Amino acid sequence: MNNVSGFLASGVSSGIKKKNKMDLALIYSERPAKVSSVFTENIVKAAPIVIGIDRIKNGLCQAIIVNSGNANACTGEKGIRYAEDICSFLARNLKIDKSLVIPSSTGVIGTQLPVQIIKKAIPSLIKNLKYDGINDFSNAILTTDQFPKLSSREISIGRKTGRIIAIGKGAGMIAPNMATMLCFIITDINISRAAMNRALRNSVEDSFNKIIVDGDTSTNDSVFLLANGELDNNEINLKSVYYKIFEKALTQVNTDISKMIVKDGEGATKVVTIEVKGAKSTRDANKIARTIGNSLLVKTALFGEDANWGRFIAAAGRAGVKFDYSKADLFFNNIKAFSNGVQSSHESKFSHIFKKPAFKVTLKLREGAASSFVITSDLTPDYIKINADYRT
Amino acid sequence: MNNVSGFLASGVSSGIKKKNKMDLALIYSERPAKVSSVFTENIVKAAPIVIGIDRIKNGLCQAIIVNSGNANACTGEKGIRYAEDICSFLARNLKIDKSLVIPSSTGVIGTQLPVQIIKKAIPSLIKNLKYDGINDFSNAILTTDQFPKLSSREISIGRKTGRIIAIGKGAGMIAPNMATMLCFIITDINISRAAMNRALRNSVEDSFNKIIVDGDTSTNDSVFLLANGELDNNEINLKSVYYKIFEKALTQVNTDISKMIVKDGEGATKVVTIEVKGAKSTRDANKIARTIGNSLLVKTALFGEDANWGRFIAAAGRAGVKFDYSKADLFFNNIKAFSNGVQSSHESKFSHIFKKPAFKVTLKLREGAASSFVITSDLTPDYIKINADYRT
Repeated sequence: MNNVSGFLASGVSSGIKKKNKMDLALIYSERPAKVSSVFTENIVKAAPIVIGIDRIKNGLCQAIIVNSGNANACTGEKGIRYAEDICSFLARNLKIDKSLVIPSSTGVIGTQLPVQIIKKAIPSLIKNLKYDGINDFSNAILTTDQFPKLSSREISIGRKTGRIIAIGKGAGMIAPNMATMLCFIITDINISRAAMNRALRNSVEDSFNKIIVDGDTSTNDSVFLLANGELDNNEINLKSVYYKIFEKALTQVNTDISKMIVKDGEGATKVVTIEVKGAKSTRDANKIARTIGNSLLVKTALFGEDANWGRFIAAAGRAGVKFDYSKADLFFNNIKAFSNGVQSSHESKFSHIFKKPAFKVTLKLREGAASSFVITSDLTPDYIKINADYRT
Repeated sequence: MNNVSGFLASGVSSGIKKKNKMDLALIYSERPAKVSSVFTENIVKAAPIVIGIDRIKNGLCQAIIVNSGNANACTGEKGIRYAEDICSFLARNLKIDKSLVIPSSTGVIGTQLPVQIIKKAIPSLIKNLKYDGINDFSNAILTTDQFPKLSSREISIGRKTGRIIAIGKGAGMIAPNMATMLCFIITDINISRAAMNRALRNSVEDSFNKIIVDGDTSTNDSVFLLANGELDNNEINLKSVYYKIFEKALTQVNTDISKMIVKDGEGATKVVTIEVKGAKSTRDANKIARTIGNSLLVKTALFGEDANWGRFIAAAGRAGVKFDYSKADLFFNNIKAFSNGVQSSHESKFSHIFKKPAFKVTLKLREGAASSFVITSDLTPDYIKINADYRT
């Protein structure tokens, strides 16, 4: 079931996008919910991020209004004023305090929000609020995405069953950074703000940050977690036995959304996990996995279904990490392709793996015990087409 | 004139490549020449690099044998033995010491060199040596390049006129790294080894390193400078008045070759200079220029001729450098597009610039006095086609 007790959602077409596409969405909690967030680390922060960072401080949120089709980034003071104006207007219409409303935007950078168009649509946005309005919401937040992204988990807390639903948006695998990645997570579980903060940060590190090749972040990237406590369980805190269970479920929904974002990667035809094991440190493992996963020559080889293993090794070699590559092994799924500094089995043993829509590449170093991974996609002519024509 | 006194060159088709394409090249100096080099910093070094690093130590070189179509990288001990074998065979045939022969390779990674095929072609390679054989040489070292790359300068030293000729290879602008970049520079000027080393390093920093977006380097990247002293001028040393003139001329030929490599960028239709001024340090300026020049969203916008300035600003914002972007100005050629955190002139004022085959993007920060630049190209469907089908 696509709902969490006490939360309503809606999505409408306001006219920001052409062709009557849905472009305005709202999540509303019947009572103020506790809120946690992870925002972009880009120093160029969109107006809604600037406002969100401030409003998140009070720890409560009752409504998030999201528009697609316009990022409200690089829009100066005016952009901030416009977003605040929309939030205030929404608050008045919802009869809640404006400090409980958070804005979120995704789309083109550098254009002012069409405030009047958005305000005009707000009454119908509110009118459309439904307990099962998440489908509409999940559609209205999309940009270049080809499909909406939803995931949920239930967890038992004593005799009660709590629910977590994540609604995501993003399709720019190659540069998930600038092709904004948004995720809204709602739960009815009663949990302390400290526990929410830690669980959200940890889960993002193991999910969304694994598909953010190159550590890139857009001007708008945001993940929100809202907990309204409707389940009325004893509050989960950092010492509670249920904390780890909560964090795990959160990581699962976020991992689901992450994989959907890769699968929906602009023009992508492959989803490939790049795993690095036996590194001196997690940082080293990460650097190598990211350099491979971000290499254009690796990504074009994936698209060409060309088992050109040399490109994986050469990318690893320029990651800025010292290792003895003659002691490293490279596997495609479980087939060893490279060992002792040279190709170790005939290409026909592993070339068929490149025909699969999804597979795993593992680089085993012999430098230590740390590991990491990233999930990447191929680079296709469609990616270029989508991004060259983005604004037309 | 395409020759330098005392140097001979040749190029033949040995059969490494299909379709009788030229793939084996030789530069020969009638007397041992002083040699300087800059090699790849990738920790995965091709066999010829391993040998080159060693042989360069004695400071003299009389012949460089170059093959295209095979990088001799990730080929283990065997790859080194094969390259040494070829050098020794060439040395015997040229009747010179094998320590005076340096190998160089470019092409596919991970396949052993076809030693017998190459050896068989060596007699005709030697027989074809000519004073004006540089054209053949420049053709035989190409891989995905669409045209050979030559540049020369003459400089007056007292009453004498010395000559510098550079012959380059490379076309992988987006990842010039793995799509090997090679450059062979010959001169008849008499110059000390210390002066050669410094001049080569400085000139590479201002030329080839400006097109190496992301600091990437391939397994094979190499630049060689050979000076045979045939001009018989008083030796130029670091204190000589002619040192700066020599370095400048060297930077000029290397800049020419660099620009040709970008112009020949795989599938590229644009050559765009990204300039960052007013940074706190050269390092900061470099980081920002490289992040912009390497952004896929910037590169696809260049291809789409879409004046999407927000992508330039957002890329700068994720470069890992702290700056106040609301104080920055962004120019396309001399038209200011962004200032005070927002778009500063109507898009029609600068959108036409994106139609040009070459233009300049300048980001002026107000953080300090340091500057840097990179030269980049657009990302096109042809790039993907070339690299997806590279080995087929």
